[in-house]
Amino acid sequence: MIADIVLDDIVRRALMEDLQGGDLTTEATVAPDTRAVARATAKSDLVVCGADVFACVFLTVDPGLRVEALVEDGERAEAGTPVWTVEGKARSILLGERTALNFVQRMSGIATQARRYVDALPAGCRTRVTDTRKTTPGLRALERYAVRCGGAYNHRDALGAGVLIKDNHIEAAGGIEPAIRRAQERAPHTVRIEIEVESLAGLDEALAAGADIVMLDNFADSELVTALERTRGRAIVEVSGGITLDRIERLGELGVDVISVGALTHSVRSADIALDIERLGGA
Amino acid sequence: MIADIVLDDIVRRALMEDLQGGDLTTEATVAPDTRAVARATAKSDLVVCGADVFACVFLTVDPGLRVEALVEDGERAEAGTPVWTVEGKARSILLGERTALNFVQRMSGIATQARRYVDALPAGCRTRVTDTRKTTPGLRALERYAVRCGGAYNHRDALGAGVLIKDNHIEAAGGIEPAIRRAQERAPHTVRIEIEVESLAGLDEALAAGADIVMLDNFADSELVTALERTRGRAIVEVSGGITLDRIERLGELGVDVISVGALTHSVRSADIALDIERLGGA
Amino acid sequence: MIADIVLDDIVRRALMEDLQGGDLTTEATVAPDTRAVARATAKSDLVVCGADVFACVFLTVDPGLRVEALVEDGERAEAGTPVWTVEGKARSILLGERTALNFVQRMSGIATQARRYVDALPAGCRTRVTDTRKTTPGLRALERYAVRCGGAYNHRDALGAGVLIKDNHIEAAGGIEPAIRRAQERAPHTVRIEIEVESLAGLDEALAAGADIVMLDNFADSELVTALERTRGRAIVEVSGGITLDRIERLGELGVDVISVGALTHSVRSADIALDIERLGGA
Amino acid sequence: MIADIVLDDIVRRALMEDLQGGDLTTEATVAPDTRAVARATAKSDLVVCGADVFACVFLTVDPGLRVEALVEDGERAEAGTPVWTVEGKARSILLGERTALNFVQRMSGIATQARRYVDALPAGCRTRVTDTRKTTPGLRALERYAVRCGGAYNHRDALGAGVLIKDNHIEAAGGIEPAIRRAQERAPHTVRIEIEVESLAGLDEALAAGADIVMLDNFADSELVTALERTRGRAIVEVSGGITLDRIERLGELGVDVISVGALTHSVRSADIALDIERLGGA
Amino acid sequence: MIADIVLDDIVRRALMEDLQGGDLTTEATVAPDTRAVARATAKSDLVVCGADVFACVFLTVDPGLRVEALVEDGERAEAGTPVWTVEGKARSILLGERTALNFVQRMSGIATQARRYVDALPAGCRTRVTDTRKTTPGLRALERYAVRCGGAYNHRDALGAGVLIKDNHIEAAGGIEPAIRRAQERAPHTVRIEIEVESLAGLDEALAAGADIVMLDNFADSELVTALERTRGRAIVEVSGGITLDRIERLGELGVDVISVGALTHSVRSADIALDIERLGGA
Amino acid sequence: MIADIVLDDIVRRALMEDLQGGDLTTEATVAPDTRAVARATAKSDLVVCGADVFACVFLTVDPGLRVEALVEDGERAEAGTPVWTVEGKARSILLGERTALNFVQRMSGIATQARRYVDALPAGCRTRVTDTRKTTPGLRALERYAVRCGGAYNHRDALGAGVLIKDNHIEAAGGIEPAIRRAQERAPHTVRIEIEVESLAGLDEALAAGADIVMLDNFADSELVTALERTRGRAIVEVSGGITLDRIERLGELGVDVISVGALTHSVRSADIALDIERLGGA
Repeated sequence: MIADIVLDDIVRRALMEDLQGGDLTTEATVAPDTRAVARATAKSDLVVCGADVFACVFLTVDPGLRVEALVEDGERAEAGTPVWTVEGKARSILLGERTALNFVQRMSGIATQARRYVDALPAGCRTRVTDTRKTTPGLRALERYAVRCGGAYNHRDALGAGVLIKDNHIEAAGGIEPAIRRAQERAPHTVRIEIEVESLAGLDEALAAGADIVMLDNFADSELVTALERTRGRAIVEVSGGITLDRIERLGELGVDVISVGALTHSVRSADIALDIERLGGA
Repeated sequence: MIADIVLDDIVRRALMEDLQGGDLTTEATVAPDTRAVARATAKSDLVVCGADVFACVFLTVDPGLRVEALVEDGERAEAGTPVWTVEGKARSILLGERTALNFVQRMSGIATQARRYVDALPAGCRTRVTDTRKTTPGLRALERYAVRCGGAYNHRDALGAGVLIKDNHIEAAGGIEPAIRRAQERAPHTVRIEIEVESLAGLDEALAAGADIVMLDNFADSELVTALERTRGRAIVEVSGGITLDRIERLGELGVDVISVGALTHSVRSADIALDIERLGGA
Repeated sequence: MIADIVLDDIVRRALMEDLQGGDLTTEATVAPDTRAVARATAKSDLVVCGADVFACVFLTVDPGLRVEALVEDGERAEAGTPVWTVEGKARSILLGERTALNFVQRMSGIATQARRYVDALPAGCRTRVTDTRKTTPGLRALERYAVRCGGAYNHRDALGAGVLIKDNHIEAAGGIEPAIRRAQERAPHTVRIEIEVESLAGLDEALAAGADIVMLDNFADSELVTALERTRGRAIVEVSGGITLDRIERLGELGVDVISVGALTHSVRSADIALDIERLGGA
Repeated sequence: MIADIVLDDIVRRALMEDLQGGDLTTEATVAPDTRAVARATAKSDLVVCGADVFACVFLTVDPGLRVEALVEDGERAEAGTPVWTVEGKARSILLGERTALNFVQRMSGIATQARRYVDALPAGCRTRVTDTRKTTPGLRALERYAVRCGGAYNHRDALGAGVLIKDNHIEAAGGIEPAIRRAQERAPHTVRIEIEVESLAGLDEALAAGADIVMLDNFADSELVTALERTRGRAIVEVSGGITLDRIERLGELGVDVISVGALTHSVRSADIALDIERLGGA
Repeated sequence: MIADIVLDDIVRRALMEDLQGGDLTTEATVAPDTRAVARATAKSDLVVCGADVFACVFLTVDPGLRVEALVEDGERAEAGTPVWTVEGKARSILLGERTALNFVQRMSGIATQARRYVDALPAGCRTRVTDTRKTTPGLRALERYAVRCGGAYNHRDALGAGVLIKDNHIEAAGGIEPAIRRAQERAPHTVRIEIEVESLAGLDEALAAGADIVMLDNFADSELVTALERTRGRAIVEVSGGITLDRIERLGELGVDVISVGALTHSVRSADIALDIERLGGA
Repeated sequence: MIADIVLDDIVRRALMEDLQGGDLTTEATVAPDTRAVARATAKSDLVVCGADVFACVFLTVDPGLRVEALVEDGERAEAGTPVWTVEGKARSILLGERTALNFVQRMSGIATQARRYVDALPAGCRTRVTDTRKTTPGLRALERYAVRCGGAYNHRDALGAGVLIKDNHIEAAGGIEPAIRRAQERAPHTVRIEIEVESLAGLDEALAAGADIVMLDNFADSELVTALERTRGRAIVEVSGGITLDRIERLGELGVDVISVGALTHSVRSADIALDIERLGGA
């Protein structure tokens, strides 16, 4: 679920970027009354994501277009599967084509990548894979949604939606204990206090100070075992720092609660989705 | 060069996304008068890109910060090289940190990738590698700039900045010849008429009609040789369609004029750049 | 702390509302080079709030103005105390006067009211008074800040920054247990799961399901005693619903963790602050 | 009447404030196809205001919702009266609920307060109660409308919509006479020249200079009688300055033309309106 | 005087229109460190207008530019007179050049035209020439300012800043008398009630109903004489409707109070102002 | 064709300018349920332009209005011809009236003027008349469209959509040859390289360097003949600089390719179009 108003704001901006100066090609070569239907088709296996954005782009260009989703967000589509269609004035479809694809290729790319990480967890395991704030500037709402469509989870949305005390905050506060204490004193009671620690000593201090979530940054597997033993039941354990796909299974087996993965959003291969347009003739 | 006004608009929007609800952690743990210096350092070899954006983010958060670029955009930086610094109120640096990194990691990632493609061309070859309109919605100006920093070139910026007749336009216009003719009749004289063709027959028709640029879509190398012979001197030859890095050298040897590569922007691995913050003490 | 970018956005909008059509009176009656100093003075006892907004309004109107804060945000000022000053072109001061006062009177009114609630708590008590989302549309960041200046606390900022399951969500989810379970399964691990309950039976169900915060809505004092006994150590206890100033002390004595008070922001008497302008003569 | 375009602009901004990060609770606990009807009901006696805003909030969240007004703006509603309803997707109703209430509670609070002032006037009296520019930044159009719904009147909308010469302008212009003269010379002929005076001497000077409206600031009743005698027929008489409800009747009896009351908008108790949501079941 | 915030908003928008896609020419041909000075010179006799806009355009492009006004707004400049200068980075000057000129040529064109109308009035005559709402969409604040610089006056700024009852309102209200009465009952006391009449009978009705301003639409000179006799002392007389320059003198002699002229803004010949750039060499 | 999203953005802004403070007159005098039909009629011969803008203004004010175009954009209408109609609530029509007319009078004025220039060309001649970037800030998309409706052509849209090397660029680059070379090296291959020359010597240098378009600035007819001989077949020839209507025929006979005319947009007489509203009675 992405609030329409957020979607609308992002989509308008993207369309202005491409259409501010008109569309020289379409105006010159396509008659106003030509009608067409376009099918967005997966060209490789992927997890589908972006139905609302796809629709929003085309309906913002022209409310007279008719958009249909053939596969629901979050479902897998094999190469060759038609995913969405749009029908109406050919000019309108051509104006929105590239912008729509730029959105859904990225979103489906993220969903597909997230699914890959989630699928790497051992069966039955309750470990969560989450995103981070390493999202594309301006597109966070869409990318977080794509992460959820891939079966992964969201971390805090923004700096005002959660407390995550990093090394710089610790240094500025004069240590782990005072940093946690201040956060406990001032942050809304609705958020958990999370702190990043880089050693077992730091972990002990954080737990003693009452941290709700401990983020173990770049811990080796052996350290993780110890850390999990010390923490179990006292705080949520999140691991972070250069997590790659092939380490996910082992982290799941160890029983960490959360694995946060920047790569879910910061290094994404766009999913291969093509839009094939078929002319339907004049009105 | 990115116009300041464009930069400012993009940066404000990105900052609002992260700061709309404040920064719970920093407000709770960092005193208002704590000062710090932060250094952005390359963690792997990369082509640097984003000095203006880096500065704009921090100066938008707090005009009292002092930002310096140690490496110029477009230059290579080896792992370990400090690239930019920012100094001033610790709170301000922490507020801008993630947003600034999200921008410059992406931009440097694009510049690094673009450089890789350009370096794959044979020495002395005049072939251009260009981007496409497959950019991240809302960030086109930044990504096109990053492409240039990597030594590659830009294709048309937007739908109003160039004519590119694709198969759908051809179908809508009733053929290659009428599509080109209409574009010649109506488009500004300041742009070249480009048309996408998928066969040698299409190429011949396009050349006969006076296309200024022919985009050969998914041509095999053998076809390319023929196409180049037929076209030489009559039009600019652009090849396109699933271009991978290992095909670049051969395309350069064949002497195509332009290779347009969607992957320059649509599937980018963020460059690894870290921001290390050192506390300087209270004012 | 309010991020400058958020402040700037709110202030610009407010100024446009008043200045879009110019200022007929000032342009006609005040010469461009007349200079003045203006002092904002408390006309009744209040808790000061709004230094940054005061400055932002005047500096947005005219970056050449010089603004000074004589009392810090969150401090008390007795009637007659000068709080802020602004000096420079008389025209610029007159253009910003009403807008600046509209902001700071409201913010100081909220801070003063919040302080009244906080002061009503028994000495040494650790109960928090918090705001709600019943803020003025468009001014939430400012009003939450004012609440903090008055010594009270913030609840979640927005719908994306916390989970608060209300009766409608419970009904939609098919009960307290499934509602909490779904929230646990889907919400970010960084937020606590809060649920509103209207009876002791509901409370028991919420605790059994693992709610992190229970909001006791419109509980009588006698019920509260029981509720606190059952909950202690298992969840944070928040009380809510038509809380008036004279009930705060008793709630503090009972030892509830959080009292959320809509009236902190939805029914505020603007603090009485006047701006007296003294002419300094032409440049 | 509030122009749709103004309404839309204010509502979008308010919704973004609450929905930018999504709605964690609703997405987790309410299924997409659940339908509901919600009734906004007066919990105490009030003057209704906000039908268009109520509708605009919900229709902006989801154009598929159906909104109905049961009581017209400006009418009284006793406690218990249903005022507006909205029906459709439960998720959409929950997303808009708080924002809609924040608007209409404030607007109805203003209308109710305005009505109280108007009702305090003697029967048949032609004195107007008006608002001032002491409105909530960003919400002026809505608050002025609410004032009208309560039976009171608007003063000038903004600095460009009227001339009101205050003491600072008088000082800057070098006196009452030159201030009025300059305004007469320069302001559009479509607006009346209003001047604030603080003494009978000032009044005489203003009348002699041809002021169209004299605003008597903080005049005692006895002075008012004299002032009214001197002014009658020569200018509109407006009184201003700390007007409280219990002074209205007397001012009306004296026959002043206009009483401007900042408290109509700057210190408002939100009207008590609740939204009760009833589930209708899935689609 | 134009409020900076209004100016800034208009200028940013104009610059985005031209710079959204960068500046291909300047980036390719001008080195970043090249410095230049540019002089804006009147190429024909004109009334100067636009100093603030000229400065705002260039300082928005690059706050490092230095802008100077050599002739004040509202003064005449003969052909060949340098009016404004800007100095700094050549690239920045080139980016802003066209936008700055588009503004000031239009504004000086309006000021020059307004001056022509004002100068056509008989010496010593107190008749005002005013603009109308026939301004360029989006530029009203600038154009009204230009009108004032030319020595003419502004009519109401917008639909909310004055009452002007036209034939359509009269028809809707059921006649002149009820239209005026309703406006008197509802409009703020700060504005005068103006009504458009098309005959002497209409004028009589308007005067009887207490109109403050009567707009005589398309009255012949002979009718005007009668109308003025009947109105004198009872209302302000405004004439309107296809007013051309050669009729101004006669209207002034007749002693009408106001002549409103749509052509002041709707049909303007841009003033001829050129910007000559001189290179100063690299930094 | 103007993209709806661009239109919507421009129209909203224009409406806000006029409606921000409401409409005092209409609210006071016109009942909410009064219905009306309005007809926009040409009052002098003109080329019609603005159907989409006319509709957009009224539908933005009130989506319930019904708008119809009786004459297509680009067609001629004789004085007295009804061009567009709008029907629905009288209030809504009155709110949009002036803004709609301000747009379409300007656009039809431009189209009419453009047609005059085009009609001045000799029959059968292939010379193009084009606009320039001397458009009204904020309205470029509309004015370029109007130019096309008048049968003329567009030059480059913005600084990022084409290369036009002017004297300042030449000076900064160190001459014509290096300026052209740098542009060829850096500008997208999709645009032609255009350069402004002021003498035959400059022309020779530009042609030798491979300019695609030469803009002959202020060439006398005799020089033009020589220039055309030297250029024919090597570059597109554009003439520019103070082109007046009576020189068009001769330039066409000489066979220049393009005549760019700033006056198409910078000095336009608004077309005379009136909106007559007829009351239809209450709902």
